[in-house]
Amino acid sequence: MRFSEADMKRLNDNTVYRTVGIEVTMAEGGEAMSRLRPNPELCWPFQGQPHGGVLATLMDTTMAWTVLTVVDPGYNCATINLDIQYTRPARGDLTCRSRVKHSGGRIVYTTADIHDADGRLVATGQGTFRVIREPAP
Amino acid sequence: MRFSEADMKRLNDNTVYRTVGIEVTMAEGGEAMSRLRPNPELCWPFQGQPHGGVLATLMDTTMAWTVLTVVDPGYNCATINLDIQYTRPARGDLTCRSRVKHSGGRIVYTTADIHDADGRLVATGQGTFRVIREPAP
Amino acid sequence: MRFSEADMKRLNDNTVYRTVGIEVTMAEGGEAMSRLRPNPELCWPFQGQPHGGVLATLMDTTMAWTVLTVVDPGYNCATINLDIQYTRPARGDLTCRSRVKHSGGRIVYTTADIHDADGRLVATGQGTFRVIREPAP
Amino acid sequence: MRFSEADMKRLNDNTVYRTVGIEVTMAEGGEAMSRLRPNPELCWPFQGQPHGGVLATLMDTTMAWTVLTVVDPGYNCATINLDIQYTRPARGDLTCRSRVKHSGGRIVYTTADIHDADGRLVATGQGTFRVIREPAP
Repeated sequence: MRFSEADMKRLNDNTVYRTVGIEVTMAEGGEAMSRLRPNPELCWPFQGQPHGGVLATLMDTTMAWTVLTVVDPGYNCATINLDIQYTRPARGDLTCRSRVKHSGGRIVYTTADIHDADGRLVATGQGTFRVIREPAP
Repeated sequence: MRFSEADMKRLNDNTVYRTVGIEVTMAEGGEAMSRLRPNPELCWPFQGQPHGGVLATLMDTTMAWTVLTVVDPGYNCATINLDIQYTRPARGDLTCRSRVKHSGGRIVYTTADIHDADGRLVATGQGTFRVIREPAP
Repeated sequence: MRFSEADMKRLNDNTVYRTVGIEVTMAEGGEAMSRLRPNPELCWPFQGQPHGGVLATLMDTTMAWTVLTVVDPGYNCATINLDIQYTRPARGDLTCRSRVKHSGGRIVYTTADIHDADGRLVATGQGTFRVIREPAP
Repeated sequence: MRFSEADMKRLNDNTVYRTVGIEVTMAEGGEAMSRLRPNPELCWPFQGQPHGGVLATLMDTTMAWTVLTVVDPGYNCATINLDIQYTRPARGDLTCRSRVKHSGGRIVYTTADIHDADGRLVATGQGTFRVIREPAP
């Protein structure tokens, strides 16, 4: 699928992204990028650091977008598995970059990295998705 | 560490758990249980289903509590890696059960399952934690 | 599928299992067990300890058998992903127990533990398999 | 650590690599490369395809070498966890490339890809290692 600017705007406008602080900024040709402006309410137990689950949410989301760029219209995807490595304490605004490593038709393999504003890797992961026949949101 | 009822109450009273809908109900002897009452704002893109990142948050949280039960006071833990398998669509209230599989001193290995109210497995995972010298919250 | 004693004998008689030292001893109803008698040639770099890849082979193998017990005849399986946690140094003969945690039709989720002769957990893992239309070996 | 040509030759000369068909061809500055010439005895159950455990062995091995390039002499490493995604059937000679993504002192995070002779990705993974005080082999 291809996402127009209007699509991006509409798809970013949902309660999950607003609550967590996610904005997907690019999704095209098997790649996607997103930004996290951490919600202070989701920074616990380490002050100023988003909960590990927030990073998982950011990663899963960004990976799913890369998958959507390689499936046909009328299809969506669901996560089979997500493996995250937490490399450093995550502070401040973060960016996530993901790309499809292989699309095997009904199963798509992705990877993603999350960096902080100073370019330090704070988390890295890989995810597998199955393609399902159901309109994307 | 041992958690009194008062500890449990105090530790459950934080902005992450309130926003996500988590309550840790038991943590003792290398095991922990928790409950998720999904926040509707975090149910997207599949209606009525918490985002995969919410399940990751629930799992990571519950695993961390099992780790805290096996470390000495004055120590906390940080996730090294979290591997989640998403087995079924997750609907309604959920419960998570986790236990320590091995504590190797500075590295602790855990596993967790998330079930729905009908006892169906909706996600399963394993997590590795490092023990850090820093008071738990 | 159901495996007769003759099936088990025939399936165990292959060059991979002989080289690595694997014997599958039970496979039924979503569960499987196997035994590893480590090949000394595959114990390196730590003396007397099978290489981590040998444990991965044992685990992947045993998981695949659990999958075969829940698919119809004429189907086989291929690993999508395998996540292993290495908990302790592995010495001497080992046993692996695996079970299906969820079978979602074309995707099957499994878990496995490897113990040594003293009952200590030396590795634990989870694996996802896709079911393929192709006769099992 | 830095590996001389003589080190590489000596370290490649072990029974695991000979049995499996592995040769590490480069290890320097947080990166490593290796080659697999599959042992036909380890190609089962899919003819001409090395067992998934062989790919795990290749990946774990190559990752460990990248770790050794970033630790001081007198230290070795042990795998904490290994997460592999199997993307395509693996046929013929294979190459594995790995690199350190983050070295956090006692814990080192790595990633690796395995390609076939036509440059197709057949497996990808991430691994975490702990650094141990013990001479490398």
